[in-house]
Amino acid sequence: MQIINSIADLRELARRRVPRAMFDYADRGSYDELTMWRNHADFDAIKLRQRVMIDVSRLTVGTTVLGEHWKMPVGIAPTGLTGLFHRDGEIHGARAAQAAGVPFCLSTMSICSIEDVRAAVEGAFWFQLYLMRDRGFNEALIARAREARCSALVLTLDLPVQALRRRDAKNGLSVPPRLTAANLGEILLRPSWLAGVLLGKRRTLGNLAAFFPRSGIGRLSEWVGGQFEASISWDDVAWVRARWPGKFILKGILDADDARRGVEAGADAIIVSNHGGRQLDGAPSTIAALPAVVDAVAGRCEVLLDGGITSGQDVLKALAFGARACLIGKSFLYGLAALGGPGVSLALAIIRAELEVSMALSGERDVRNVGRQILAA
Amino acid sequence: MQIINSIADLRELARRRVPRAMFDYADRGSYDELTMWRNHADFDAIKLRQRVMIDVSRLTVGTTVLGEHWKMPVGIAPTGLTGLFHRDGEIHGARAAQAAGVPFCLSTMSICSIEDVRAAVEGAFWFQLYLMRDRGFNEALIARAREARCSALVLTLDLPVQALRRRDAKNGLSVPPRLTAANLGEILLRPSWLAGVLLGKRRTLGNLAAFFPRSGIGRLSEWVGGQFEASISWDDVAWVRARWPGKFILKGILDADDARRGVEAGADAIIVSNHGGRQLDGAPSTIAALPAVVDAVAGRCEVLLDGGITSGQDVLKALAFGARACLIGKSFLYGLAALGGPGVSLALAIIRAELEVSMALSGERDVRNVGRQILAA
Amino acid sequence: MQIINSIADLRELARRRVPRAMFDYADRGSYDELTMWRNHADFDAIKLRQRVMIDVSRLTVGTTVLGEHWKMPVGIAPTGLTGLFHRDGEIHGARAAQAAGVPFCLSTMSICSIEDVRAAVEGAFWFQLYLMRDRGFNEALIARAREARCSALVLTLDLPVQALRRRDAKNGLSVPPRLTAANLGEILLRPSWLAGVLLGKRRTLGNLAAFFPRSGIGRLSEWVGGQFEASISWDDVAWVRARWPGKFILKGILDADDARRGVEAGADAIIVSNHGGRQLDGAPSTIAALPAVVDAVAGRCEVLLDGGITSGQDVLKALAFGARACLIGKSFLYGLAALGGPGVSLALAIIRAELEVSMALSGERDVRNVGRQILAA
Amino acid sequence: MQIINSIADLRELARRRVPRAMFDYADRGSYDELTMWRNHADFDAIKLRQRVMIDVSRLTVGTTVLGEHWKMPVGIAPTGLTGLFHRDGEIHGARAAQAAGVPFCLSTMSICSIEDVRAAVEGAFWFQLYLMRDRGFNEALIARAREARCSALVLTLDLPVQALRRRDAKNGLSVPPRLTAANLGEILLRPSWLAGVLLGKRRTLGNLAAFFPRSGIGRLSEWVGGQFEASISWDDVAWVRARWPGKFILKGILDADDARRGVEAGADAIIVSNHGGRQLDGAPSTIAALPAVVDAVAGRCEVLLDGGITSGQDVLKALAFGARACLIGKSFLYGLAALGGPGVSLALAIIRAELEVSMALSGERDVRNVGRQILAA
Repeated sequence: MQIINSIADLRELARRRVPRAMFDYADRGSYDELTMWRNHADFDAIKLRQRVMIDVSRLTVGTTVLGEHWKMPVGIAPTGLTGLFHRDGEIHGARAAQAAGVPFCLSTMSICSIEDVRAAVEGAFWFQLYLMRDRGFNEALIARAREARCSALVLTLDLPVQALRRRDAKNGLSVPPRLTAANLGEILLRPSWLAGVLLGKRRTLGNLAAFFPRSGIGRLSEWVGGQFEASISWDDVAWVRARWPGKFILKGILDADDARRGVEAGADAIIVSNHGGRQLDGAPSTIAALPAVVDAVAGRCEVLLDGGITSGQDVLKALAFGARACLIGKSFLYGLAALGGPGVSLALAIIRAELEVSMALSGERDVRNVGRQILAA
Repeated sequence: MQIINSIADLRELARRRVPRAMFDYADRGSYDELTMWRNHADFDAIKLRQRVMIDVSRLTVGTTVLGEHWKMPVGIAPTGLTGLFHRDGEIHGARAAQAAGVPFCLSTMSICSIEDVRAAVEGAFWFQLYLMRDRGFNEALIARAREARCSALVLTLDLPVQALRRRDAKNGLSVPPRLTAANLGEILLRPSWLAGVLLGKRRTLGNLAAFFPRSGIGRLSEWVGGQFEASISWDDVAWVRARWPGKFILKGILDADDARRGVEAGADAIIVSNHGGRQLDGAPSTIAALPAVVDAVAGRCEVLLDGGITSGQDVLKALAFGARACLIGKSFLYGLAALGGPGVSLALAIIRAELEVSMALSGERDVRNVGRQILAA
Repeated sequence: MQIINSIADLRELARRRVPRAMFDYADRGSYDELTMWRNHADFDAIKLRQRVMIDVSRLTVGTTVLGEHWKMPVGIAPTGLTGLFHRDGEIHGARAAQAAGVPFCLSTMSICSIEDVRAAVEGAFWFQLYLMRDRGFNEALIARAREARCSALVLTLDLPVQALRRRDAKNGLSVPPRLTAANLGEILLRPSWLAGVLLGKRRTLGNLAAFFPRSGIGRLSEWVGGQFEASISWDDVAWVRARWPGKFILKGILDADDARRGVEAGADAIIVSNHGGRQLDGAPSTIAALPAVVDAVAGRCEVLLDGGITSGQDVLKALAFGARACLIGKSFLYGLAALGGPGVSLALAIIRAELEVSMALSGERDVRNVGRQILAA
Repeated sequence: MQIINSIADLRELARRRVPRAMFDYADRGSYDELTMWRNHADFDAIKLRQRVMIDVSRLTVGTTVLGEHWKMPVGIAPTGLTGLFHRDGEIHGARAAQAAGVPFCLSTMSICSIEDVRAAVEGAFWFQLYLMRDRGFNEALIARAREARCSALVLTLDLPVQALRRRDAKNGLSVPPRLTAANLGEILLRPSWLAGVLLGKRRTLGNLAAFFPRSGIGRLSEWVGGQFEASISWDDVAWVRARWPGKFILKGILDADDARRGVEAGADAIIVSNHGGRQLDGAPSTIAALPAVVDAVAGRCEVLLDGGITSGQDVLKALAFGARACLIGKSFLYGLAALGGPGVSLALAIIRAELEVSMALSGERDVRNVGRQILAA
């Protein structure tokens, strides 16, 4: 393949560039992957209205989210282990996002730490928080995010317990990952990844390693497994809210009742998400869940969507149903794994071009005005 | 495949471990297998509601069925010829069920007899009865089940005549099975099965052999073929009910009218079943039939479901539509054929873990409270 | 394949036994085969109601059609070129039908003539008429059918022009067929067909050859092509009705208005048919068209169905929607091509057994009482 | 394949005759090709009503469109680069259309210029206009079309910006095309195309080359890329309308509001089109969009349909939903690429024969009377 002009192309290239365990980690969903499949099928079934003879020479896809200007309504979602897809993956992601004028969200489970990213990029980025059993750890992380002048804190709500991604288990993927006999062969076949990532200086969870400077990988892995907090509740959301004075975003809401509760909890924005089809298998697709959430919050906070976005057309459809913007997770990782930083830029550029063309052909000039009027019956 | 983490994995392993005739007997349905296919497709189409920030640290999947405590809402369905999937298959099944805290139901058409199982396990088990033309045989079986302190009698209603499982016929499978030129090659390729099962002491229908101690396999096979009773009616149900003082369960009801009639006949529980898609091809799936049956019995007896369960998500969906618990037949046999007793334990553990995670992500803490509130529109 | 227990098995065997041009002639439909596909898919989507504990020991599938007793509600449809699927194919079909206690319908386009069949079988058979441009020919055929004591005349209505069966054209199939370089290779690979059919005494259209005793195949083929009558109308139906004093059946009605008109034209029965998906591509399936036809005739004549029947379950579904009986065309030819006369008997026996089992499991004892009560929602 | 009797056959032959870049240009759609797929699937789902015993011996498929007689309701749509599918492709297309008694529409992006076609054929043809940034160019083109006595001007509305056809980009297809290392191998494998097209005298965009006599291919390609006019609006439509006194047709309308606006802009006809699934991916199929457009114009102008037509049945369905006639683009190019002029004639003849047969079997004698009465529920 010489020319890359779709997210599917980046996915295919990524498949060849990184060890299978990493590719599958980005690519697959939980259990029977019914929800992951729905995330795409439900987007595909939506019909856009073709309009003609509307002057679309001055098209703008720039928008405002949480008071900040985004050059396009697509940011980068938090993804775990990003630095294992490409050396300094989180830094490349943040830089590419910055170049594209959109936010980058760093995951708690990143390889580069908050400080690594802070030191490497100029502008602000978001930080995503998993609330863990150890309150000291949580407080420290929040403080570090404030210290790094993160412009928003994204609290993930849909992982009180971890659903099984069958393929990850078969691949022997642990968090943080370890070298095993099973994946050694795969890795030796990809010398550039071996040189770029495995021999790089950052190979473990940066944010956690900083907290446990003396822990080996084995000890850390065990600690992580025990830290996910099934007792997490709205009280904990309040606990975080009280400690974070900036923009506060709740990620992982699919339900109208939860959305209303999120507004009451002080969310500035909600991210409609089913964790990319990686948690509750059987949950509705993000696009199917979106309208009821938008209705429920009734403008009291902004609504973003994350899950299933592989084209500018998907973005346009999400906006038509009321999302303020979208985030890309898998599409971001495919770009990063395929080509590093330029791959991330390419993923964003592909989606942006698709969005612009599709908006133009829908007769809409300003992305901020996109609504149900662009949908066909 | 090194790691087994789904019922599909157990199925694949079973396919390699036992002769094709046995695998197909467990795996296939009647005629065009439309109903068997629906049993899965209809489950897959149901949407679960993802909820967040509900403390699910104290999750319980234990329930009460017919006054007995089950550690999870999944028991083991009666399956024929179980002992040919693994030496002493019924005993392994009963022990694994007991270890998991759920009931095991022994089939009339089992290889191990009621007495074999009684002698080998400690706790109670259920016994499933096919009413046969020979009333003396029926009475004797019921008496043996009482003698063995079976805690419930399950009367199968949906086999007045036997639908054709085309593949079984092609494989030359008879009940009880016989060694033929056609299946000899298959068997020689599986020496562990040959050693474990074929050379084991139990190779015929234990409950029937005990009744016909001097019969050869040929004579028994002929007798079985002539014993299925197309004239069976609600009068016969009353006849059984009068002879069985314990818990009485009717298996094979898909219809609301039949469910009401079953309640009047004194059923303590009804099992919604289409015989795993092995009888009326064209019948609705079990999950599609469930709601009307639940409505019809209106709480006057408990409703279980058997057919199509291959994951904890399926169990959760069945419970949401009003089942008190589910039974697994094929999923049980896959586990048994794949790995013997530990395979059965693994099948139950996989489904249990899936159920727990899915319940947690649906925001429900107590399996007894699962209802339509966990379904998404 | 050693054991044949489905129509699909007979189809597969037929595929291997006769030259591809003959198999395709039986097997394929017109144009994109959308209607042929619907004929099956619409049957498959129907749900049967499973009922239990109804004494089904005295099951009867015998019925009365047009005042005659049929041992099962499945007759044999008229099919063209039948004698090329097996030597004396029409005679074998008629005998097998007679043995099964159901009617056989001979096609105008048969290889064996009316007189051949009359001489070879004892009981009555039906005769199917294509109205041709040559009125003398039509009159002669009707007279020959009376002479042969045919018990019903079936007038085909849905072939005023002939739709293209693309595969037939590619195979070089003409009516009557001719040996060409293209099909010679195929034929030499099937020596039993070569010996049985091609070297047999009957290789051309018997009913037409008798009318043109001195015509060569080339001349006859040309004549047939020019005889299909696009101007055929209800006046022609009246013309036939006036010449045929016996039972009169109209074949090829899919529409309620046409059905009413057919009743007024004196039809004793209507056959709902789309010519096996071989004429109007885009027409509804036969089972989808049936209910409106049944409503339209309102009991004033009997309604049969032909098209898409490959199992006893299909028959049961057609009866549930109001058909009095069904006819099999392709399923008959598969049996004939696969195994000759015994293959036809086997096809009927397979469908009969499936019908009996499915009726029993639907709780219906008498095929004449089958109605919508056996359908599940 | 010896016998060609479907558009699918022509497509397959075309695939073998021309370099892949050309075939894909004709064959593929934009982005994920969802709309292209719908164009076919939505036609396939429509049901035609089978009628019988209506005298269809005098069938007429001739109709009147824009006051002109068409021998069948199927014209040839404007397609770009046509002369690269076969030497003098546009001339062959125009001649074949003329022989079939239907209009041919020449594209602005044709290889043969307006004057080339004018000189080579006798009758009138249509001219399709892309409004470009250079008003002088537009005026000149309109003047040339008047000079060539084109009987209608077709203004394309749905290309204010160009959607990405991913495959074209991968194939290195530019407009006008250039020889590259990537496509050289493909071309050498097809010597007849090499001799017939590449070594022919016309290899660039005739209408544009005439305007820029001294430009090389590189300069022209660059100019074309900069000429598509995103600011095009209804004012521009008025500008064209004022300069074109003849029949005026608007192509690329899918929406009822746009259709009404088109009528007000003075359109004599509207072509419902989504550019063959090559522009807005996500737009409804043409057949799904048709009814609302027909309702909206309420007889004030004629409505044609272009997109998804691969059979006479498709034409019949479009007419049933209110189209006056259809245009074929891809089906035309398949015929041209497969067999040159005779291939175009064959494509038209195949569709005509299918239309006639399907009309006859629907019981409709006059194509001008086709309406919703021929649709089945």
